[in-house]
Amino acid sequence: MSDLQFDAQGRLRHLLTLEGIGRARIETLLDRAAGLRAAFAAGQGGPRPLAGRTVVNLFFEPSTRTRTSFELAARRLGAEVVNFDLAGSSTSKGESLEDTLATLEAMQADAFVVRHRENGTPARLAACARRAAILNAGDGNHAHPTQGLLDALTIRDRHADFSALTVTICGDILHSRVARSDLHVLRALGTREIRLCGPVRLLPDAAEVGSAVLTSDFDAAVEGSDVVIMLRLQKERMDAALVDSPDAYFERYGLDARRLRRAAADALVLHPGPMNRGVEIADDVADGPQSRVLDQVANGIPVRMAALVSLLEHPLPSPAEDPDR
Amino acid sequence: MSDLQFDAQGRLRHLLTLEGIGRARIETLLDRAAGLRAAFAAGQGGPRPLAGRTVVNLFFEPSTRTRTSFELAARRLGAEVVNFDLAGSSTSKGESLEDTLATLEAMQADAFVVRHRENGTPARLAACARRAAILNAGDGNHAHPTQGLLDALTIRDRHADFSALTVTICGDILHSRVARSDLHVLRALGTREIRLCGPVRLLPDAAEVGSAVLTSDFDAAVEGSDVVIMLRLQKERMDAALVDSPDAYFERYGLDARRLRRAAADALVLHPGPMNRGVEIADDVADGPQSRVLDQVANGIPVRMAALVSLLEHPLPSPAEDPDR
Amino acid sequence: MSDLQFDAQGRLRHLLTLEGIGRARIETLLDRAAGLRAAFAAGQGGPRPLAGRTVVNLFFEPSTRTRTSFELAARRLGAEVVNFDLAGSSTSKGESLEDTLATLEAMQADAFVVRHRENGTPARLAACARRAAILNAGDGNHAHPTQGLLDALTIRDRHADFSALTVTICGDILHSRVARSDLHVLRALGTREIRLCGPVRLLPDAAEVGSAVLTSDFDAAVEGSDVVIMLRLQKERMDAALVDSPDAYFERYGLDARRLRRAAADALVLHPGPMNRGVEIADDVADGPQSRVLDQVANGIPVRMAALVSLLEHPLPSPAEDPDR
Repeated sequence: MSDLQFDAQGRLRHLLTLEGIGRARIETLLDRAAGLRAAFAAGQGGPRPLAGRTVVNLFFEPSTRTRTSFELAARRLGAEVVNFDLAGSSTSKGESLEDTLATLEAMQADAFVVRHRENGTPARLAACARRAAILNAGDGNHAHPTQGLLDALTIRDRHADFSALTVTICGDILHSRVARSDLHVLRALGTREIRLCGPVRLLPDAAEVGSAVLTSDFDAAVEGSDVVIMLRLQKERMDAALVDSPDAYFERYGLDARRLRRAAADALVLHPGPMNRGVEIADDVADGPQSRVLDQVANGIPVRMAALVSLLEHPLPSPAEDPDR
Repeated sequence: MSDLQFDAQGRLRHLLTLEGIGRARIETLLDRAAGLRAAFAAGQGGPRPLAGRTVVNLFFEPSTRTRTSFELAARRLGAEVVNFDLAGSSTSKGESLEDTLATLEAMQADAFVVRHRENGTPARLAACARRAAILNAGDGNHAHPTQGLLDALTIRDRHADFSALTVTICGDILHSRVARSDLHVLRALGTREIRLCGPVRLLPDAAEVGSAVLTSDFDAAVEGSDVVIMLRLQKERMDAALVDSPDAYFERYGLDARRLRRAAADALVLHPGPMNRGVEIADDVADGPQSRVLDQVANGIPVRMAALVSLLEHPLPSPAEDPDR
Repeated sequence: MSDLQFDAQGRLRHLLTLEGIGRARIETLLDRAAGLRAAFAAGQGGPRPLAGRTVVNLFFEPSTRTRTSFELAARRLGAEVVNFDLAGSSTSKGESLEDTLATLEAMQADAFVVRHRENGTPARLAACARRAAILNAGDGNHAHPTQGLLDALTIRDRHADFSALTVTICGDILHSRVARSDLHVLRALGTREIRLCGPVRLLPDAAEVGSAVLTSDFDAAVEGSDVVIMLRLQKERMDAALVDSPDAYFERYGLDARRLRRAAADALVLHPGPMNRGVEIADDVADGPQSRVLDQVANGIPVRMAALVSLLEHPLPSPAEDPDR
């Protein structure tokens, strides 16, 4: 699937997953994000390299915060953004996803930001896109690459050298696209040790995660960690009785100040949001000095700007050059 | 109704229907659309003659593709676009359509793009508009003038001389605003022969269509046609048992490669979308070399640009000059 | 609550209520609105002091007309506007309002336009905002400050001296945030006499309204009034049987031409819209020469522009300077 991401010149053509994207390219994206963050820091606007370009938000799952982050990233760079409301759209008239894509491409849409509950939908769209770039904004439990990048940028702002870091990710790892994208980016950047912690039924197979440590002992996992990434416990996991109760979950897997003291001094706390306070994270940690939750949100904008600019800066292939047409 | 479209100087003031719009004016609109298409071809933006203007999308029926096409046309020309969501609006608080229009006009809206399931709603709004231009984006089975224009442009790109053309329109002609607008524009451009084909219960009265041929024999209709325009079969027609089954419909009225061979060599295939594949059109035709479906979508943007610019380039009447106020 | 509105230098920091805003500041806002109205009069755009700024519409109650007015005001000044759809948002995933605000602030949102059915929600958000300005677009029956300002501007366009004016407000005063904001602004501008008229059960306590006259005799209230502000009768009041019937209400509290003749010659008629024609106002008055209903709508845009510019023209406090962080 990741081969689709690159064109014949080896340039990034779509952003579907961080799996298979190497360290140099990741660092270039993060450098670029940091540069754009500086350029827009005054809040008075910045460069507009996407003027005249059109970005379509194609969200099949509601996600106001991610959609808004992509929308602001694209608009601040000068692009027109269309929010394609899929409830009222032709897909409800039985049009295939491929025909919807082709139609919007024919309107000169340059990029599609796609969220879908099924793994692989962004890749499926990338496979049939004639010229537009596809950005995965989260598909099933597969990948959420811009979240992985913004988490990496947030950590890198404090720790330049990932080879000195122990990072713990805690929660429903099994169903988490965030955990998978974090795992790929942390590994690409050479993180020393990655610990994946959660209830046994919510942990992935060891085969999937390679050298990462799998554990259900959160106290042990936090011990000495430089970064703790807490995942949101989806309500559907509780409803499916994969978790006994919010209180019991918090008792074993919630991050409170007491537990955080086991981590390295000044360890960073991340959470992709929205937070379930009192379920996976306590108020005093969420709002405390080690929390980087709002930095993550802030970094989401320049990271998405960097992804959009990287995908759109080269001339897109012209449909006329497409031998299939 | 069509008289409302022109002002005292004979200039186009609203775009409600193609009925009554003569050949010269149609050709001017198409020339203008072709010019705007060229100006925006590089995908890096183009002229912004509508900067400072406000266009309101007033859609009482969902239609993401047409709304998006108008929205992109207006925004790429520099206009602000407001999508007026009628589910959450004052019309649900019992405000009349006329009061809603007057309110939005008072906010300096310059044009309204209107879609409504009832015939004549755009004309009703044009009759009470103080200064804004009304563009019909489809009303009932009455008219869809920009669809007619974009179909004409798509055909003209290949065939400059309509007087040499035989054009067949096939499907639910009776309920189709697309068919009616196509009929008007094809006639205005001097098309040699127009054939309207569909099940007897879905054909209009002969009195309505003048010299156009009415038939239920699709094989005969396709024979020698230079252009075949396939219409979408609405699900409600099937539900209303006006059509036996999708399969039986496809058998008699679907366009597949075999049937298309009856048409002129290199005959063009058009469809307003979204397509019901396997109901009115086969995959190999929809995706084949004679299909102009995506060209139609692409042409929709410059056609709508041309309509907006033509309506808004002259100073709009000032409310102060309105003797009724 | 109103102290939250001012910063340490006494500058307006949020716009939550007109209560406690003095005459000089009100007049400055109205002058500024009049200036912006003139600057944008040609309909070709105007100054863009908010370029690079981001305004978020945070509407918990549907209100297309107010939301559109704020949206156009912000966009015409150059701001990016995000309409935060609260049905599909994280608040439906259990995120607190405060976390939603913090998240959007982290995306560099500069201002939030807030409508909510509960009194005090905008103030609650202002209390926890790190840097963004909060504009109240209507909270419960508490306040609707931009409506008060636009009503004042509409009156001032005709009558420069409020100390010579008698103004009657008629309708469901008790539940009306419009009436409360009108009362505050009219008082700040030195209005000679304010009469509040409605059914006894829909009048506020005398203690709340100070020197304003409370009455249920609409004929007497209209007598000699220079301005009559009619309020919308909410359908829920009728349903709650606080009003006998629309006809009975119109008979006693509706403004028709006969009643309007009791007012001063050329008295102005205002209504915040949307109007219930035949319930609180007759067609001949709504559409008559004394009606200022559409002027109110038109003035809404420059009034909201003036509020946005006033709140955003000073550098916003940087989160880095916030000692709580």
